[in-house]
Amino acid sequence: MPLMTGEELLEFQRREFPQTVDMGISVEELSDTHIVIGMKTTDRHLRPGGTVSGPTMMELADLTMYFLLLAQIGPVALAVTTNLSINFLRKPEPGSLRATGKLLKLGRSLAVGEISIFSGDMSEPVAHVTTTYSIPPKR
Amino acid sequence: MPLMTGEELLEFQRREFPQTVDMGISVEELSDTHIVIGMKTTDRHLRPGGTVSGPTMMELADLTMYFLLLAQIGPVALAVTTNLSINFLRKPEPGSLRATGKLLKLGRSLAVGEISIFSGDMSEPVAHVTTTYSIPPKR
Amino acid sequence: MPLMTGEELLEFQRREFPQTVDMGISVEELSDTHIVIGMKTTDRHLRPGGTVSGPTMMELADLTMYFLLLAQIGPVALAVTTNLSINFLRKPEPGSLRATGKLLKLGRSLAVGEISIFSGDMSEPVAHVTTTYSIPPKR
Amino acid sequence: MPLMTGEELLEFQRREFPQTVDMGISVEELSDTHIVIGMKTTDRHLRPGGTVSGPTMMELADLTMYFLLLAQIGPVALAVTTNLSINFLRKPEPGSLRATGKLLKLGRSLAVGEISIFSGDMSEPVAHVTTTYSIPPKR
Repeated sequence: MPLMTGEELLEFQRREFPQTVDMGISVEELSDTHIVIGMKTTDRHLRPGGTVSGPTMMELADLTMYFLLLAQIGPVALAVTTNLSINFLRKPEPGSLRATGKLLKLGRSLAVGEISIFSGDMSEPVAHVTTTYSIPPKR
Repeated sequence: MPLMTGEELLEFQRREFPQTVDMGISVEELSDTHIVIGMKTTDRHLRPGGTVSGPTMMELADLTMYFLLLAQIGPVALAVTTNLSINFLRKPEPGSLRATGKLLKLGRSLAVGEISIFSGDMSEPVAHVTTTYSIPPKR
Repeated sequence: MPLMTGEELLEFQRREFPQTVDMGISVEELSDTHIVIGMKTTDRHLRPGGTVSGPTMMELADLTMYFLLLAQIGPVALAVTTNLSINFLRKPEPGSLRATGKLLKLGRSLAVGEISIFSGDMSEPVAHVTTTYSIPPKR
Repeated sequence: MPLMTGEELLEFQRREFPQTVDMGISVEELSDTHIVIGMKTTDRHLRPGGTVSGPTMMELADLTMYFLLLAQIGPVALAVTTNLSINFLRKPEPGSLRATGKLLKLGRSLAVGEISIFSGDMSEPVAHVTTTYSIPPKR
């Protein structure tokens, strides 16, 4: 079972990363290996032509993996992203995004996950991410 | 010789991507294959512990490649990022960032580049990015 | 429905890529969006300590995506890999490998897929790959 | 100064990775942060149309980073690749390949490098790689 609940993750985010609170994040599902995160986009996240910016999707993917990892190892603010690779697949629409994260590996010093991002009601992902976090030694 | 100057790139950014203007971008150098971009970080770009957020560096890298590509092919708003892979190497400090971009390939439909990001006076990069843009057919 | 069967894919491989036939590939499952490939490792694929070499897993992932793509677009020898990113997660054991491929996007000029590689009876993947193929214009 | 010479690296390869000796590797240059590796391709490395296979270039890039890392930390057979991302840029020609590697970071537990691969006399790279190695704790 995860060490943290969705509510505890959001509380941790508010306390430690207040700059990211305007992302409008919610934790929809959470287990030992999976997470589903919802996000409401605002004008700040959009680009002309009515699409969501790439950096917004990268930020959402990064936070999704961070939450998924913290839920397993506890509130370790010092876990840091070492690599993030994103493929942009389709044009997202303004409104809501949904990120589904899956832990591929939770090792002693590295965690690897993959995240798919969905837009509104589209059944196919708008972006796919793999990312690695480095976990601080003493936990 | 590039088809656009640094000033024209910034003017294009202001017109087409007004949401990104608060990044405080400047074009320091520009050639057929290289670009140097400067950026001033503000509170919005920081994280606790006094470091620059990962998404800020991803956004800077993406914009660096976009400017480098546009400078060669002209103001084609429809060029889109298809892949971006970033390695976070060291902790950046608040203040100024400098991104150096290099075109690895400028093909008919794909352009590939690499970007190194430097922080303040540090001689070693804080992040390294490779990224691919898809170029729209009729240009 | 796929345009090619597993047997036709293997026949195409034998004719066009005879150098890869010693990989001992079989096509276990195939649909519009998924494929399962089996492989028997030989001494050539091993490393000291009794593990399978990284390049072997990269080659298997590349072939898995190639087969998955060809099955959808027909035998187009000119489809080429433009990007491949692999995360090595666990130590594989000599013997059999199984690669499961999933098409994330099949566009007009680019196809993106993800592949997980499993070793023997292990339930967790030993490697995870995302890869992009460029599809030649006139098909 | 590196802890190992080019000759010692090749001797280590012959002893620990005899399967890779048929790659026809030579160490052309070596410093604290850079390496240049030469390779002669044989029929085994080719593909129809007279080009070098992708897996061959991945294997060369992986070995280039491994040599560059070992030269700095000494003959630690247990350093393992955790991530490798390759962009294929141009079609290589049969004959000789040259890989230039650069250490982006040599940390306590992770090393990150980038490698460019050149073919024959071509001045532009045929492939570009970034890769991360995990370094075992007690060295």
